[in-house]
Amino acid sequence: MAYPPIVIALIEALGADVVSLRETIAGRRWADWSGEPADIPLALLRPRSTAQLSEAMSICTLYCQPVVVQGGLTGLAGGACTRASDVAISLERMTRICEVDPVSATLTAEAGATLESVQNAAAEAGLTFPFDLGARGSCTIGGNLATNAGGNRVIKYGMARDQVLGLEAVLANGDVIDSTHKMVKNNTGYDLRNLMIGSEGTLGIITRVVLRLRPPASAVATAWCGVGTYESVTGLLSLALRRLPTGVSAFEVMWPSFVDYMTTHVPDIRNPLDERHNFHVLMESVGTTEPEHQEVFQCFLEEALEEGLIENAALAQSKGDAAEFWRIRDSTAEFPVLMPDLIAFDVSFSIADIGRAAQECDAALRNTWPTSTVLTYGHLGDGNLHLIVQVPGADAATVDAVENLVYGIVRDYRGSVSAEHGIGSKKRDVLGHTRSVAELAAMRAIKAALDPHNILNPDKVLPA
Amino acid sequence: MAYPPIVIALIEALGADVVSLRETIAGRRWADWSGEPADIPLALLRPRSTAQLSEAMSICTLYCQPVVVQGGLTGLAGGACTRASDVAISLERMTRICEVDPVSATLTAEAGATLESVQNAAAEAGLTFPFDLGARGSCTIGGNLATNAGGNRVIKYGMARDQVLGLEAVLANGDVIDSTHKMVKNNTGYDLRNLMIGSEGTLGIITRVVLRLRPPASAVATAWCGVGTYESVTGLLSLALRRLPTGVSAFEVMWPSFVDYMTTHVPDIRNPLDERHNFHVLMESVGTTEPEHQEVFQCFLEEALEEGLIENAALAQSKGDAAEFWRIRDSTAEFPVLMPDLIAFDVSFSIADIGRAAQECDAALRNTWPTSTVLTYGHLGDGNLHLIVQVPGADAATVDAVENLVYGIVRDYRGSVSAEHGIGSKKRDVLGHTRSVAELAAMRAIKAALDPHNILNPDKVLPA
Repeated sequence: MAYPPIVIALIEALGADVVSLRETIAGRRWADWSGEPADIPLALLRPRSTAQLSEAMSICTLYCQPVVVQGGLTGLAGGACTRASDVAISLERMTRICEVDPVSATLTAEAGATLESVQNAAAEAGLTFPFDLGARGSCTIGGNLATNAGGNRVIKYGMARDQVLGLEAVLANGDVIDSTHKMVKNNTGYDLRNLMIGSEGTLGIITRVVLRLRPPASAVATAWCGVGTYESVTGLLSLALRRLPTGVSAFEVMWPSFVDYMTTHVPDIRNPLDERHNFHVLMESVGTTEPEHQEVFQCFLEEALEEGLIENAALAQSKGDAAEFWRIRDSTAEFPVLMPDLIAFDVSFSIADIGRAAQECDAALRNTWPTSTVLTYGHLGDGNLHLIVQVPGADAATVDAVENLVYGIVRDYRGSVSAEHGIGSKKRDVLGHTRSVAELAAMRAIKAALDPHNILNPDKVLPA
Repeated sequence: MAYPPIVIALIEALGADVVSLRETIAGRRWADWSGEPADIPLALLRPRSTAQLSEAMSICTLYCQPVVVQGGLTGLAGGACTRASDVAISLERMTRICEVDPVSATLTAEAGATLESVQNAAAEAGLTFPFDLGARGSCTIGGNLATNAGGNRVIKYGMARDQVLGLEAVLANGDVIDSTHKMVKNNTGYDLRNLMIGSEGTLGIITRVVLRLRPPASAVATAWCGVGTYESVTGLLSLALRRLPTGVSAFEVMWPSFVDYMTTHVPDIRNPLDERHNFHVLMESVGTTEPEHQEVFQCFLEEALEEGLIENAALAQSKGDAAEFWRIRDSTAEFPVLMPDLIAFDVSFSIADIGRAAQECDAALRNTWPTSTVLTYGHLGDGNLHLIVQVPGADAATVDAVENLVYGIVRDYRGSVSAEHGIGSKKRDVLGHTRSVAELAAMRAIKAALDPHNILNPDKVLPA
């Protein structure tokens, strides 16, 4: 069998240890969790160093060979899916934790390290890497940055980009941008770091990162609150930010549809409050000093009750209680089993708009498809709404219609069609709902400048 | 007198109200505080709206006319200085606070609004815009973002870029990028926002910004500490971050040279501690609840004393005490009078390296120029060192030699030649000490893509 010249060139330069041929690639290593179309790639490269990757990219530039970079393949937008004509690049052999510097409070790691291994290395040094996602055991820190992932604690610690001091990346032509410094302040020219972060492998390949660590949070206070109106939900958030010295580390809001569905469909899940409320809020605040932290939190809850912002609340008295509360929110992991045909949304609004926007989506969906299931929940403190829609017997046209309806409302509110999952291939056609023509033109100009042969994850992110 | 065609075209399109001719420009509106070379520009534009500015840029593109954008002209790197062949653009007529949204905790303003007016508008709404600089009354929020300014509270709240949710900018060709949304999470394509921020007017002109507001900090604890070793300084920072629930809002370190100079040269300034220490640390922590906040802070100080991290400390008992401590640190404002011929540095290192790097600079400078004055201080919690050097009778060659020496040490430590002041024209030639050849090439490619005629602040930031 004759191999394409690019594959022969890669094997000659890097050896069979680095280059796996199409027929030897196993384990669905060409698709992520998005369900987007994917095919087995031409070859899979697994470089052991930045130098090897740089050499591979020089060769791919020479052959104008498209590449797709892969982390833990847990993405939800199709950014890591390959076509038959692509070369896949996995960073699974570049997983080293290079250094933990406890004085500067930094951790340097290769991009293929899993999020969990980064968290563990920080904890071993008596510090914490607070950024967290459900997929922590599989997703890689490089993938987290390439997609600017969000997760559970954005309200306190920010998105993935906010954890980064420096990074190293390989550009399309093989050039290595080594910006792996540990400095908090560095006003020296353009912000290439933030340009690489969130570009989903279309501008460069992140190979090494310097992350900011934080002091460990030893005290955790958690409550499950029943709230009557959306105004009270935002009032509760505002009061929490004013009263709690350490602010809030989670402010998850669930509409009744969500709580009803979870408590009836998932075994052993029950509402911590006896009554049904219009909104349920799972609040968490991390701090440093027990028992003061718990006392301040309890005082705040009492004030919120007195002011009528909450109708009722359950305060976690133990780690077990807190885990019970979180199980309700995290039972979204059961969705693929419960609703294999669900249509999921990850959108953003200003905090002031979420209540109305969510209601508008819900009403329009139920009105158009009366038999549909619509579940609404979100990281409200970050303006991030998740919406789960199931229409019995939906065909492709129905899915399109559901998406058009929701993304239309997002556009009307000047919201974001992707809060934390990214664009990939899945949302490419609705990118223009959030970004203007002038913005898309500027993005295309940047893409053409840094990747003139369009070989880095082509056909992802930017609409054709 | 014949005006150049570009000036005539601008007057025809925008009117004499917007376009001031060279001979009518007064008040040194062509230079900032940097002392960099500057000349009266061809004309000064003062647009009243983004639409007017967009039109002006379309015309400048047609004529390939270089422009320099100006905020409050308080920059220290020469970014706003004009040449005789430039057209200056001032945003002094675009100063509106457009909206404060207390629910979403955001403020929208035109870029010409002063930092102080933004702070005041936030305070009137019961919130706070914590970003702060000495030049707050003159500098503009657009200038703060164009230079990604730093200031006093970076350790807690981050740099200027960390305050921004959305922005509007006019590109070289007159295109308007309207990204003035209020969303915390928005993973939709490339991070144009952070690319504009810190580009010092070379990639686009920021015209409107959406800023993130925070709950007001009602409690402030301040201490002046004497510390024996650099290891104890970093140990003190680490303990503070672990013990103080709200962390630290300032951690300013002064070497003895600085404190000695200030207490002997500036009237009414005295060291709050009787003894001389190897390091003096001005610490501040802001919180929400008095008196608990003060109590926790005092407990922390006692622990630091017991652990031997600090030799002695003065705890501010009143706002007056705190103001006295800050007067020592802020007496740097007297430098232009005390040392008109000073050579000032704004550099960064990893926190672990600052102690050694500062000592190396100090020793090398005093060794080479025995009669020199060298003062060392900095925002240590951010890795930011300021170094003030005066060499009696220094000529231009000596100034060059002093700069070469310090920037050489910065390069050896992989530090940053500009922590918070930016590059402008002043540090253009040492940008390569911090950024690699590959990084500079990527920056140039981006500049060429977004400003193909090189009309936005040409000859600034990127070395020729």
